[in-house]
Amino acid sequence: MRVKISRKEHFNAAHRLHNPAWNDARNAAVFGKCNSPNFHGHNYEVIANVTGEIDPDSGFVIDMKVLKQLLKEEIIEPFDHLNLNLDVAEFKTLNPTAENMVVVIWKRLRNRLSSDLDLSVTLYETERNYVEYSGK
Amino acid sequence: MRVKISRKEHFNAAHRLHNPAWNDARNAAVFGKCNSPNFHGHNYEVIANVTGEIDPDSGFVIDMKVLKQLLKEEIIEPFDHLNLNLDVAEFKTLNPTAENMVVVIWKRLRNRLSSDLDLSVTLYETERNYVEYSGK
Amino acid sequence: MRVKISRKEHFNAAHRLHNPAWNDARNAAVFGKCNSPNFHGHNYEVIANVTGEIDPDSGFVIDMKVLKQLLKEEIIEPFDHLNLNLDVAEFKTLNPTAENMVVVIWKRLRNRLSSDLDLSVTLYETERNYVEYSGK
Amino acid sequence: MRVKISRKEHFNAAHRLHNPAWNDARNAAVFGKCNSPNFHGHNYEVIANVTGEIDPDSGFVIDMKVLKQLLKEEIIEPFDHLNLNLDVAEFKTLNPTAENMVVVIWKRLRNRLSSDLDLSVTLYETERNYVEYSGK
Amino acid sequence: MRVKISRKEHFNAAHRLHNPAWNDARNAAVFGKCNSPNFHGHNYEVIANVTGEIDPDSGFVIDMKVLKQLLKEEIIEPFDHLNLNLDVAEFKTLNPTAENMVVVIWKRLRNRLSSDLDLSVTLYETERNYVEYSGK
Amino acid sequence: MRVKISRKEHFNAAHRLHNPAWNDARNAAVFGKCNSPNFHGHNYEVIANVTGEIDPDSGFVIDMKVLKQLLKEEIIEPFDHLNLNLDVAEFKTLNPTAENMVVVIWKRLRNRLSSDLDLSVTLYETERNYVEYSGK
Repeated sequence: MRVKISRKEHFNAAHRLHNPAWNDARNAAVFGKCNSPNFHGHNYEVIANVTGEIDPDSGFVIDMKVLKQLLKEEIIEPFDHLNLNLDVAEFKTLNPTAENMVVVIWKRLRNRLSSDLDLSVTLYETERNYVEYSGK
Repeated sequence: MRVKISRKEHFNAAHRLHNPAWNDARNAAVFGKCNSPNFHGHNYEVIANVTGEIDPDSGFVIDMKVLKQLLKEEIIEPFDHLNLNLDVAEFKTLNPTAENMVVVIWKRLRNRLSSDLDLSVTLYETERNYVEYSGK
Repeated sequence: MRVKISRKEHFNAAHRLHNPAWNDARNAAVFGKCNSPNFHGHNYEVIANVTGEIDPDSGFVIDMKVLKQLLKEEIIEPFDHLNLNLDVAEFKTLNPTAENMVVVIWKRLRNRLSSDLDLSVTLYETERNYVEYSGK
Repeated sequence: MRVKISRKEHFNAAHRLHNPAWNDARNAAVFGKCNSPNFHGHNYEVIANVTGEIDPDSGFVIDMKVLKQLLKEEIIEPFDHLNLNLDVAEFKTLNPTAENMVVVIWKRLRNRLSSDLDLSVTLYETERNYVEYSGK
Repeated sequence: MRVKISRKEHFNAAHRLHNPAWNDARNAAVFGKCNSPNFHGHNYEVIANVTGEIDPDSGFVIDMKVLKQLLKEEIIEPFDHLNLNLDVAEFKTLNPTAENMVVVIWKRLRNRLSSDLDLSVTLYETERNYVEYSGK
Repeated sequence: MRVKISRKEHFNAAHRLHNPAWNDARNAAVFGKCNSPNFHGHNYEVIANVTGEIDPDSGFVIDMKVLKQLLKEEIIEPFDHLNLNLDVAEFKTLNPTAENMVVVIWKRLRNRLSSDLDLSVTLYETERNYVEYSGK
C-alpha cells in the first residue's frame, strides 16, 4: 500500500530569463517580458510529493514535520526573498525558467530522502503556469 | 529529464446535455437539470499539460507564449462566450459532457504539437467536477 | 455587538446581454462577446451577508440552516441550471448584467429577512468580475 | 479512450493522532500538536477520481449523480461532523492519519464501483497537506 | 490617508455547539450536526484587518512582522490543534459559534493594538461560512 | 441604487523595501528579508472596486471592457514584469510597501474615472497579506 503525501510551501523571489550566449534581440524575442533587465518576481508555490509505504506504528509515509523541515532547509531558506539569478548558486550559470527550477528543487530534495521513497516536485510560478518533475 | 509544463486558461460557455435518440423522459432521467431545454452554462477552466525534454538553450520544454497562443486559437476563440451545442462544430452531433469535451480539446491541441511532446488535458466544469484525458 | 455572517452558494446559468431597444450594431458595440445570440454561461457564486445582534441563547446572528434554506428557495432553485433571459421572470424584461442580477437577488432575500437584520449581497460572475449591493 | 472524472466533496471532523502502544512521551514526540488529548479538527476535502471508457449513449464515464450519491453514503454521512477516533468504526483501532484515512476511503468506494473502473482518492487535510492512494 | 492592511493566518480546532441550559432535543433542533457529542472540527482562517495612517519613514501602517507575532501569541498558540470547548478559557462558558469566536478574537487583538488603529476581524469556519466583527 | 463592481487583474514585479535615510542596520531591523539587496518579487493581484448608479440602458455601472482597459494602461503595462524600485517613476523616491503601492494605484485610477463613481483599490502582495485604500 503505497500512498503519496504532498506538502505545499511558498517563497517569494526575483528572477530574469536570459541566455548570455545570445544577443539582446534574440533574448528579447525568446523571453519577452521575462527578459526585462532589472528583474521581476513571483510568489512561487512548491509542492513535494513523496510516495512510500505507510509505517504501521505511526501511520505515516513520512513525518510531515520532517518533510516541512527539509523543504525549509533545502528550498525556502536558500530561495525566499532573494534574487534567483544573483543569490542562488545553481542559477548563476543556469537560466531560472520554471523547468530548470523544478529540476534543481527535485535534486536538492532527492539527496535528502531515503531511497525507498519516490519523489516528484510541482512548482507554481503563477496560478496559471506550473511545472512538474519526477526524476525520469 | 522530461518535465511536465501546465498552462491554465478559461472560457465561459452555455451547453445542454441531451441525446436526440432518447425520448424526453429518458433524457430527464439520465441528465437531470443538465437537460434543461434553454441551456445553462459554466466558467470552464482548461489546463494543457505538455511533457518533454528541456531545451538546453532556452530552458523551456515549450515556449509558454506559444502554448498560450495555441490554446487561444484552438480552444478559447472557438468556445468562449458561445453555445457549445449550437455554435461549435464538434458538438452539433456529440453530447457536450465534460468527458466528450476533454477528448475534443485534446484532439485539437494534439494536432498542433510536435510528436516528441506528450499531452494531457484537464477540464474543470465546476470547482468540484473535472475530467482528464491523455490520449490512452 | 453587531456581527456580519456570510454564506456562499453557487448556481450555473446561461445568459445573454442584449437591449431590445437598440439595433444589432449598438448591442454588439456595447456588449461585445456577451451579446452572442445563442447565449453563454457562468458558474455564479452568490454570497448573502447578514448583519445583526448575536442571540445570547444560540450564539447565532441567524441560524445558518435557515439562511441556506432561504438561499435555496429564493435563488438556487429559481436560477440554477436555467437560462436567465428565458426562464427567470425578472430577466424577461431586465438585462441580466451582474449589476442587475445582484439587485434582483438582494430584493428576493430582503423580503424574507426580519427588519432588524442588514443585508448585502455579493455576486461573482467569474473569479475576476464581481459586484456587491447593500440596498443603498 | 479512457477518461478520468473527478468529484470533490468535503466533510468536517475532529481527530487525534495517538498510538496506544506507545507511552505519552513517544506519542508527543512523534505526533506533536496532533496528539493533543481533547482532539482538534479539519475541513477535509475528498476527491474521488474514477477512470473508464466513455459510454457512447450518455457521454459519461460514470453518472456524476451516482458518484455524488456514493460519496454521500460511504464517506460524507459516516464521517461528517463526527469524531473520527470515537465515532467511525475503522478508526477505533487505526490511527486516523491522512495516510490511513485515504486508504479507508479508497476501500469504501472501491467496493461500490464496477471492476472496469479504476479509482484513486485524494484527501486534503489542509490546503497544504494532502495524500493520494490508488490501490497499488 | 488611512489604509487597511490585512493578515490571514489559520488554525485547526475541534468544537461543539451546545447550550447547557437547554435539553438534548432543543440542542439537537437548533444546532443539528454541530451538536454532535464527541466534537467535530474545522480549518479556521482568521484575518486581522488593521486601518491607520501610513508612517512616512517605514511606509507601513503596522509592521507585518509585529501583526503576525500578535496573531501568533493571542490566537494561533491559544487555539491551534486544541478543543475550543475544553481547552480555551473563553469558551468554557460561551458557545463557540463563529459569531462568538470572532468577538473573542477581536477583543484579544484589540487589547494589544494602539488606539489610533481601527480593527476588524474576519473568521472563516469553512470556505462557504464566515463572519466579521469590527467592534460596533 | 448604487452597486459596487470589482475587477481583479495581476502583475508580476520585483521590489525591495529600503529607506535611504537609514543605515543598513536599521533597514535590516525594520524591513527584515524584504530589505534583501538584490530584490525579491511577487505575483500581485490588484482589484479596482468602482461604485455608482446602474445605467438603465446598458445595465452597467461601468463597462467592464473600459475598466479592464484602464487597469491595463495605468497599472499592468507600467508595472508588470518590471522592478518597482528601478523601473516605475513613483517608487524611485517612495518605498514600494504594499501600503504605498495601493495609494499610488488608487491615484492613477482615480484620475481616469468620472467623479460620480467612487473608487477603492485592494492589492494582494501574497494570498495572506493585502491592503485596501479608498481615498479617505
